[in-house]
Amino acid sequence: MINQYKQLCTHISELVHIDNHDEKCISERFDAKELRKKDILLGQGSVSNHMMFISKGCLITYALDNGVERVLQIGIENWWVNDLNSFFTQTASAYSIKAIEESIVFQIQRDELELLFREVPKMERFFRLKIQNAYTAQQARFISNVTETAEERYANFRTKYGMLEQRVPQYMVASYLGITPEFLSTIRKST
Amino acid sequence: MINQYKQLCTHISELVHIDNHDEKCISERFDAKELRKKDILLGQGSVSNHMMFISKGCLITYALDNGVERVLQIGIENWWVNDLNSFFTQTASAYSIKAIEESIVFQIQRDELELLFREVPKMERFFRLKIQNAYTAQQARFISNVTETAEERYANFRTKYGMLEQRVPQYMVASYLGITPEFLSTIRKST
Repeated sequence: MINQYKQLCTHISELVHIDNHDEKCISERFDAKELRKKDILLGQGSVSNHMMFISKGCLITYALDNGVERVLQIGIENWWVNDLNSFFTQTASAYSIKAIEESIVFQIQRDELELLFREVPKMERFFRLKIQNAYTAQQARFISNVTETAEERYANFRTKYGMLEQRVPQYMVASYLGITPEFLSTIRKST
Repeated sequence: MINQYKQLCTHISELVHIDNHDEKCISERFDAKELRKKDILLGQGSVSNHMMFISKGCLITYALDNGVERVLQIGIENWWVNDLNSFFTQTASAYSIKAIEESIVFQIQRDELELLFREVPKMERFFRLKIQNAYTAQQARFISNVTETAEERYANFRTKYGMLEQRVPQYMVASYLGITPEFLSTIRKST
């Protein structure tokens, strides 16, 4: 039998050693969710009840700011997406997560995650490391927004996301960088 | 024999169940460090190599901004203090941590922490939960600074820190709130 969660297990095994039994437990606790383009995975104002891993496709995290989508994060294959704050504190999400391509997400519900921690304690370590990274990324993004020029943020974006630029509409990249599409176009021409 | 780390073990046991063997392992991996008033626990620009728990006293986290101490956090007994980003990524700390009372800190070095995780795997869970809280606090502090008035921040400070106000000089409380000591004095008189 082919395990559709093999990709997830391979991803987890990059940080912690897992055996066949662990893989079985992990695969049983996750669900696969298919999303069409523009489908909302998590809506601003609702409570996040899942940890979510992108198996295929591309999703953006955004907040509505006076009716305008402000893109906060862009995620592709093998990334985790969430409003961690909403998930941890069980409060309303400050933003939405939406598929911008046909996508498949592997998700695990809060209670299932607690059960998985009991079955496979090393998943505690995996998520501790992932949450450390999220903490670091949150701080880096805040500092970047305060201290870097738009040109520097664009250069960093290209370094970090590489070919992703081809998959995401220009106006979303501009929004992610906190600039207008016109200004992004000017920066692109001059680099 | 009295275990001087009993306080730490009691603190840990509020989140995860630990037995006598676990307590022994924890106590062996931590060191106690005494600090006089004004002693620096972590200096801005150096790399954090320890997780640090305040057993006694009061410490502030601050960044130097054009020669002025900008207070970011205030910690007392049973709080953890660190530049987590520096600790996780082994890069220069963005701020300093200083004792503002005679204090005792229990600290564990990075490699010792990894050994402790192997000996007492449930410490992974403990630190996952602690790091979740740090992530949430980081986000809340950012949102608070952007959206709340000085009066609201002061009210929240009193709710959160209670009697701590008696232990911390007014100018540090003002700095923590991002206002001048004069303005804090005005707010205090009107509440």
